[in-house]
Amino acid sequence: MNIYEQDLDKSAANYAALSPVSFVERSAEVFGDLAAVVHGARRYTWAQTRERSARLAAALRELGVARGSTVSVMLPNTPEMVEAHYAVPALNAVLNTLNTRLDAPLLAWQMNHCEAEVLITDREFSPVMHEALRLLREEHGRSPVVIDVDDNEYRGAGERLGKHEYEALLAAHPPLPQLHGPQDEWDAIAVSYTSGTTGDPKGVVTHHRGGYLNAVCNAATWTMPHFPRYLWTLPMFHCNGWCFPWTVAMLGGTHVCLRKVEAKAIFDAMREQGADHYCAAPIVHNLLINADPALRDGITQRVRGMVAGAAPPASMIEGMARLGIDITHVYGLTEVYGPAAVAVKRDSWAGESLSEQTRLNGRQGVRYVL
Amino acid sequence: MNIYEQDLDKSAANYAALSPVSFVERSAEVFGDLAAVVHGARRYTWAQTRERSARLAAALRELGVARGSTVSVMLPNTPEMVEAHYAVPALNAVLNTLNTRLDAPLLAWQMNHCEAEVLITDREFSPVMHEALRLLREEHGRSPVVIDVDDNEYRGAGERLGKHEYEALLAAHPPLPQLHGPQDEWDAIAVSYTSGTTGDPKGVVTHHRGGYLNAVCNAATWTMPHFPRYLWTLPMFHCNGWCFPWTVAMLGGTHVCLRKVEAKAIFDAMREQGADHYCAAPIVHNLLINADPALRDGITQRVRGMVAGAAPPASMIEGMARLGIDITHVYGLTEVYGPAAVAVKRDSWAGESLSEQTRLNGRQGVRYVL
Repeated sequence: MNIYEQDLDKSAANYAALSPVSFVERSAEVFGDLAAVVHGARRYTWAQTRERSARLAAALRELGVARGSTVSVMLPNTPEMVEAHYAVPALNAVLNTLNTRLDAPLLAWQMNHCEAEVLITDREFSPVMHEALRLLREEHGRSPVVIDVDDNEYRGAGERLGKHEYEALLAAHPPLPQLHGPQDEWDAIAVSYTSGTTGDPKGVVTHHRGGYLNAVCNAATWTMPHFPRYLWTLPMFHCNGWCFPWTVAMLGGTHVCLRKVEAKAIFDAMREQGADHYCAAPIVHNLLINADPALRDGITQRVRGMVAGAAPPASMIEGMARLGIDITHVYGLTEVYGPAAVAVKRDSWAGESLSEQTRLNGRQGVRYVL
Repeated sequence: MNIYEQDLDKSAANYAALSPVSFVERSAEVFGDLAAVVHGARRYTWAQTRERSARLAAALRELGVARGSTVSVMLPNTPEMVEAHYAVPALNAVLNTLNTRLDAPLLAWQMNHCEAEVLITDREFSPVMHEALRLLREEHGRSPVVIDVDDNEYRGAGERLGKHEYEALLAAHPPLPQLHGPQDEWDAIAVSYTSGTTGDPKGVVTHHRGGYLNAVCNAATWTMPHFPRYLWTLPMFHCNGWCFPWTVAMLGGTHVCLRKVEAKAIFDAMREQGADHYCAAPIVHNLLINADPALRDGITQRVRGMVAGAAPPASMIEGMARLGIDITHVYGLTEVYGPAAVAVKRDSWAGESLSEQTRLNGRQGVRYVL
């Protein structure tokens, strides 16, 4: 035994399990007065977002959610979706974000497969979730506790399905004193389903350590500053928003929520909320390129977009450059927490022509550093 | 047992031990043609720095260095010091960086305490190391293998003490095919000694996981871009340069070496090597403030400095601001890998007067995020 193996065991003084939950507590503590979430007329500071998440955690715990329990959510990019990303892992429970575009049989199949004990669902999805819950009950004998979200930014139809209403539940539960990460960083944090092109969807289980590291790597890869104003174009249900719910918490940034991805709403968020970072599939970037140029008037800050998928076509990169939006191309998959390869831009490219920059930026990237 | 505890054991496909050694291999692989080290007339790319480190590792392995062995180094901020930070951990051995200002009895005491098997020493320190090695042999019965560094940027006196010369050793050993981190990220990476103000120095043992996380946190805290040109004013012997040897590797940056901290040499490095980041104690910053203003002519890039220690006096912060150098204040200690608290600047401060910004920047900071 060498001298470095003596008297140097792990203890609370020298070892903390890696968990993105720690970012939420820290930002509430050190940036508590700064904006954490903007959604229509709603505004929450980091202290308030922490408190709402800690109330949700307290409520879920009373409903029986504990280590290894699954909480499914059927939510657009709203404050409740952000809070679910903070509250569920803080109970050492596992977050299952349902793809809002799926049909009832597939939703029921997934909730059964991951043994969902609680479902948090937005009123907009009531018709499909009503049917999914019926299938889940009749075919699989499962009846998760249902919590309805009645978002004041949603004005459409949709009945409530459960006996709990989200805001009432938060009001009824004092917040947990602290949001803790798990003792074991290897514990599951989320389960997400692949599209199942070639058979049943695969359930991808991710862990706290991985979520933490990829959240950090997003910031490092993109050289994100403190306090980014991050616009939610990418669905958070998609692979936990590539870990950006946690990246934004790490940086004390602002989640600019968006129920629906439309060109006008995106440009409005850039102009009115100062949104300066966003992630999206190529189709969303093309939406911006092809939008009425008048929609972009009055946006003065530099905006940076991340585009994922196959190496993007030159027309798209060039189109974004002409819009003044700085694009970074990444590639990844659910199995690796989101982005895992990135086209890192080199300083020497700045002197190249736009078409050469486009060619260089359009190449497939290099592996993430963490 | 819940469903998340089944069939999800650690394997090479889903678990990699955290080690800063990984940054060196990645930068050699993806940024191999970019500058890694600049030192006087010497220039090494990342591919070359990786190769030199892998040759050093091969040589040390042949000398018997293995997991848990200690390699002491008595080096200024030269390429060899950078290489030691990459080669020794790649052998799962432990790096002991000696404080070049200590006297022979204390150096001998430390090398005995950490059971140094190999010593790499710069010719400049031959007189004190000759005496330290004598004490180590006569009082403790230890005779480490000695490797002399004959840096071509050093033109002073100083005999060689050992039978190995650094460059000859590298030339004689083909590089290891890969620089690996350890299997266990909890393994020791370095041992550094505190000043021993109140008794014998304390040996602070740090591990790969911690070195990795603090290296990453340096980048995140400071929003460091890719390819920084990092000037070595802070001694690398001081708490492994606050983990910046690994931060620079992570970002594919350039180590701008500096044997001696002098105002002219610092401003020259900023002008001629484009150095844009540096860390230093308050005394170094004051050196710059009080230097002949003519020395600063021709520096056009934004330079950012990190200052550590007690909250800096307003005169220093204000003086740096007037020099056009953006200062970030951090605080830390050897026991926590270097910086652990930082005065994060808020966007809202930008509108304040210089004196108010100075007051805000001068306050003690908040804890590091990782």
